[in-house]
This record gives sequence, structure tokens and C-alpha cells, in this order.
Amino acid sequence: MFSQYLELVQQKKPLVHCITNYVTVNDCANMVLACGASPIMADDAQEVEDITTICNSLVINIGTLNERTIASMIKAGKKANQLGHPVILDPVGAGASALRTNTVLQLLQEVKFTAIRGNISEIKTVALGSGTTKGVDADVADEVNAQTLPEVLAFAKALARQTGAVIIITGPQDIITDGEQSCIVSNGHAMMSRITGSGCMLTCLLGAYLAAGPDSAFAACAAAVAEMGLAGEIAYQPGCGTLTFRTGLLDAISTMTGETLNGGARVAYL
Amino acid sequence: MFSQYLELVQQKKPLVHCITNYVTVNDCANMVLACGASPIMADDAQEVEDITTICNSLVINIGTLNERTIASMIKAGKKANQLGHPVILDPVGAGASALRTNTVLQLLQEVKFTAIRGNISEIKTVALGSGTTKGVDADVADEVNAQTLPEVLAFAKALARQTGAVIIITGPQDIITDGEQSCIVSNGHAMMSRITGSGCMLTCLLGAYLAAGPDSAFAACAAAVAEMGLAGEIAYQPGCGTLTFRTGLLDAISTMTGETLNGGARVAYL
Amino acid sequence: MFSQYLELVQQKKPLVHCITNYVTVNDCANMVLACGASPIMADDAQEVEDITTICNSLVINIGTLNERTIASMIKAGKKANQLGHPVILDPVGAGASALRTNTVLQLLQEVKFTAIRGNISEIKTVALGSGTTKGVDADVADEVNAQTLPEVLAFAKALARQTGAVIIITGPQDIITDGEQSCIVSNGHAMMSRITGSGCMLTCLLGAYLAAGPDSAFAACAAAVAEMGLAGEIAYQPGCGTLTFRTGLLDAISTMTGETLNGGARVAYL
Repeated sequence: MFSQYLELVQQKKPLVHCITNYVTVNDCANMVLACGASPIMADDAQEVEDITTICNSLVINIGTLNERTIASMIKAGKKANQLGHPVILDPVGAGASALRTNTVLQLLQEVKFTAIRGNISEIKTVALGSGTTKGVDADVADEVNAQTLPEVLAFAKALARQTGAVIIITGPQDIITDGEQSCIVSNGHAMMSRITGSGCMLTCLLGAYLAAGPDSAFAACAAAVAEMGLAGEIAYQPGCGTLTFRTGLLDAISTMTGETLNGGARVAYL
Repeated sequence: MFSQYLELVQQKKPLVHCITNYVTVNDCANMVLACGASPIMADDAQEVEDITTICNSLVINIGTLNERTIASMIKAGKKANQLGHPVILDPVGAGASALRTNTVLQLLQEVKFTAIRGNISEIKTVALGSGTTKGVDADVADEVNAQTLPEVLAFAKALARQTGAVIIITGPQDIITDGEQSCIVSNGHAMMSRITGSGCMLTCLLGAYLAAGPDSAFAACAAAVAEMGLAGEIAYQPGCGTLTFRTGLLDAISTMTGETLNGGARVAYL
Repeated sequence: MFSQYLELVQQKKPLVHCITNYVTVNDCANMVLACGASPIMADDAQEVEDITTICNSLVINIGTLNERTIASMIKAGKKANQLGHPVILDPVGAGASALRTNTVLQLLQEVKFTAIRGNISEIKTVALGSGTTKGVDADVADEVNAQTLPEVLAFAKALARQTGAVIIITGPQDIITDGEQSCIVSNGHAMMSRITGSGCMLTCLLGAYLAAGPDSAFAACAAAVAEMGLAGEIAYQPGCGTLTFRTGLLDAISTMTGETLNGGARVAYL
């Protein structure tokens, strides 16, 4: 049951070190707090090792990367690997610029990730080393549907086996695989793509779930993905505006119970 | 009718590249999404040309400028000019420091802008190369009223002709001119000056409207200014607090229809 | 009565220069606006002296410090000291990394502060030059209770006398002392620790209160602390989510009257 992973976060109150973009960083910090964990944002090369050491997981998000923070991401990632802390990657906009694509490739070479979350275009870029993208949104050509699903799943499984990371491809349906076990989460709401930060917040939620030390990284990731989607469903009210929706989304995470999560999660194992 | 410009954004869903400050960047991203476009925030010199290339317009906001991002603004602006993309300038706090004033002058020398939006003090600084300011708010000495309006308008028209940009001076009444056509938009609400980001968000809305490729930059700017002001009117509820007002403002943009905009816009052509 | 300090801010509308972190900067700007003052965020070494000069106080928050901004903090702090402007320090996460601890010590050597606000772990680090911390939250070992209060108070008074600053230690109960006068404010709500930025926003509120030129820095700080706590009480609704709570908190500040503050403040002078 997914409730155990949610409740583990609430009991352990783990610390999550986030090196993330300045666009959605406030939403990310509030997401980590909402689920019961505690965030620290720190990106200077002189302190990232100290900060990572006192935390329980590290989230790396390349949303507004620059030369200074790329160096910090690598330094922090290596330290987290040494300490055995989970490290989660959000390759925001990979494929949109050579800098983003190359940074992702460098990160994959130098840091071992526990989980990697992106939209289909971003994950394709992670796997292939190049890709197309509609900015920070998925390219229409990459749409996942009944026809393309088997191919996408095979490709995600291969990437999971190659990297050792749980791969999470989010979209209208979310695909989660560790190369062995796979599932599709069909929670969520279209409004989630009308606010900034849905993806970044989910990646931080994954960071919190993995920081709590779950028995299964795959199951914990699936639980976090389901919780996020369910919160989107709860947040939506007919006719609501986008900022009211965002408030509802974080409110729903902050008041979510294990019972609600178990009752609302829609997961199909493949 | 203004509805055509609003609907063009919703149909085209253009990409808007924003190099902006870290204070209101989240509001700006949500504003671009709310109106139906898609934002990308990227400010590293190594990637701004790539990002600008895949976008449909570029917004430059100097709110928390620094040496690194100033170089990126110029590089991105030149690239956008080469590609024929609209470039929009928000000279936040021009006049408040030599760095801001000089950066604005350098930007005007090196980049051709499609639209420039600021309060009266900022726009005076843009035009005169020096100015006074009350921080990021307009100097009281610069107040636009019935008596000073003709002078302000003449000066805005001259700046429009000199730069080739639509000039938008926002305040209790908003002045828009391309040097030939001019209008005053009297939508808006005093609460807009009690939240951070009203100006920055409007500049991004202009970026979205111009990215959609309207038949008239002047008319598209007037439509965006009217939509923003109307959203402020819709958002206000007697006695409401400032953050509830901000939620209402973005909600109103995200649910605005062409019909509502046409019905509520208060525009006087001069 | 505390109302005079609140009303002084609303009358004077002072400008507050904030060099702060990118996590909660938007909340901080909205807090300064909500209380009736005006914020300017600027952190480039080339402009911080210009900006500080036109402002009425300076807030330094080390939340996401880096080499570039540390230099700006020191430069701005020295300039503010020269001009006789109040300078307020928020040593976010002091003790969590050597960089943060060393930066705080350097700031204390080079800049004279009017007020210093942090949780008990941060303030201990400020005083002792080293400390333990749970990230950006107080270490459990540092808990302030009836038994430890006399010791904490003695230590806060000593720090106030040593630095010349009003010391504000926030937590379930807030301790304020200038080394001579001391009080405990028992306003507030536990939800304040479930959103990011409660501490940062309070520090900015202190910056606004001190910028208005109160007759007593101690009394003005106590008034600001009481207003923040009272706003938390007003914002809380049974079962509310965390983002709704944040909206309510800023709404409550933006609609607070002197009468409400006087009626709701719970202060015990020691």
C-alpha cells in the first residue's frame, strides 16, 4: 500500500537538499514541507558538500542552470554518492539547448542517480544524448499513447537498467520503471500543465519519499507520483483559475492521509 | 476588437523566453501560462542563443540584474533581433542605480526593442539617460495627471519614434504609443501596486501577445494592457488581502475570454 | 502601544533594501508591501551602494548566499552603516555549513547590525561561532522551554550587549532583547513552520518597522514580532492547507490595523 511511504516521510521528517532553479524554488520548498519533510536550498560550491552531508537526499534540477551551479551539482552529487544518499535528477528542458543536454550527459557520467524524472522529450534526450523539445514542455512528436506505449516502456526500462535509476516519465499518464518492475499511474489533472512547477514539485516529492529510506525505491516513486496526481484531482474545481489550482495542489499534499492516497491512487502494474 | 489578440495567443501557444529577476519570476512564468503561452526562463550566456532560437519572443527584465545576466541579455537580444523575434524591455528601477541606468542605455544601443514598458520614472530614465525614482516605484514628482498628460504623451511619442518600439507607460492610467497611434487604457485597480510583480507580469503578457504574431504591435500591446487591468478589477473584492488579490489576478487572466475583454476594456484613442 | 509602530510604517512608506535568498524572495517582497513599505531587491556589488543610499533600511539574509552576494552584503552593510541606516541580519542556516557560519562571523566583524533575528540554533551559532542545526530549522537539542529560558535569555542579552543589536530568537515563543529591556511574545501558530519563509518574512517586517524611524528599536521589533505572530493566528483555519495558510498570513498583514494589533498582541516583559 502506498500509505506506508507517505507515512514514513511524515514520521522521519527527512532533510532534502535541493539544487534547483529560481523559477519554482519557492513551490519546491513548500512541496517538501507540505509532505512532512524539510527542504534546504543551497547551491554554492563552497557549501554544497556540507549541506548534502547533513541531509538525507539530494535533488538536482537543471531548470536555470549556469556555470557556477553546474559545478555545484556535480560536487554535491559525488558527495551524496559517497554517503549513499539518494540522488534525484530533473533534466528540465534537456534538448532545448546544448548546455542543458551536455550538462545532463556530464551529470550521468559523474553521478549515480536513484531516480530520474522528466517528460517524454526530456527523458529521450537523457537516453539518446540529443532530442527535440517544445521548450520545457514535451514535443508533440513524442506523445505517449496506446500505440507508442510499448516502445516508450521498452526504452524506459533500458534506461533504468543502464543507469540503475528508477525512471519516471510524466505526462497525461505517468510511467515508472526500475527496469524490472513497471507501472502506469493515471492520476492527475490537465490543469497541472497550466501552472509552472508541477514537474519540479513532483521531483522534490520524490526526493522526500526517497530520503525517508523506503524498502523499495520503485514503490516509493510510484506512491509519490500517485500522491501528486491525486492532489491535482483534489485541487481542481470546475472553472477554477490557475493560481487557485496551485494553492489547492499544495493544500492537498499538506493534508493528504495514507487512507486518501490508498483510496485514490490509480496504478496499473505492467 | 481586442479579443482577436487574446485568442491568437491561445491558438498559437507561443514560447516566450524570459531573462528576468528572481523576485517575480514565478509570477511571470504563471502569467505566461495563464494567458495560454509557454514560458522558458534561461539566463546563462552559454545557452541564451539556443533558447531564444526555439522561442517566439524575448522578454528582458533588469529587476535583479548582475554582470553575468547583463551579458546574457545583450547576447540573447542580438540573436532575437537577427531572427526577427519581438524583444520586450522592462527597465525595472532604471534611475535607481547607475548600473541600471547604464545597462538600459547599453541595451538600447545594442538591441532593437519591439516594446518597452515601465512606470513614468523608468521611461523618463530610458529617454533622458538619467532620472529620479522612488526605488522601483514612480517618483511622485513624475505623476501623470490631466495637466501633465500632453507633455508625457509628446515625450512617449518621441521615444517611440526614436527607438521604433511601442512605448507603454503604466500607472493609474496607462499610456500606449507607437509614435503614430496612441491610446490611454483606464482599466486597473490600486491593489496592483500593493503586490510585487504587477509590472513584470504585464511585460511578460506583452511578450506573449507579441510572440503570437499579431497584425499590429500597437493594438496587441493595448489589448494586453487592457487585459491586465481588467484582471485587476475582476480580482479585487472589498476588504481582500494582497495575496488573495494576486491569486485572483492570475486566476482572472487564466479564465479570461475574448468577450469579457472586449466588454471590459476601457480605451481612449488620442 | 504597538499600533504606533505599525502606523508609522504605513505613514512613512519607507524603502527597504533586501539582499536575500531566491527561495522566499517573492514572499519577502510581498510582506514588505503588505505592511505598507516598499521593497527593493538588488544584490550586484556594482549597485548595492546606490540602492542602499536611496533606501531607509537594509536587510541581509544569507539563505542562498554565494561568493558574489557575500561581497555585496558586506559592501551594502558598510554603506548603510555610514549613512546611519538600520541594518537587519537573518543568519539562515548558520551552523549548517562552514560557509554560512564564517560568513556570519565576517558580517558581524565588518557591519554593525541594528537587529539580528534567527531561531535558537542560528542565534547560538552567531554568538558562539559554531553550532548544530537541523538544516534551516532549530536543533531539537536547542529547544527553549521553561527550564532553559533563563539561560537562553542571559545568553541573548549578552549577545545584544556585545553587538549593540536587538536580538530576536523566534520559535514557539519569541524572545526579544536589547540587553536592557526584554520581552517574550507568545503570538504565532504552529502552521508557520510548515511553510517556507516565515522567518525571512518576519526579518523583512523588522526591516520595514526599523526603516520607519521608530523611537525605540526594541519596541518596534517587539511590535513587528507580535504582528507576524498575530497574522499567523488570524490566517489559521481548522483543517486548512499550507498554501491557503500562507495566503491568509500575508492577507492578515495587509489588512492589519493598529487596533487589531494592540488587542491581539501577547507580550510579557521580563
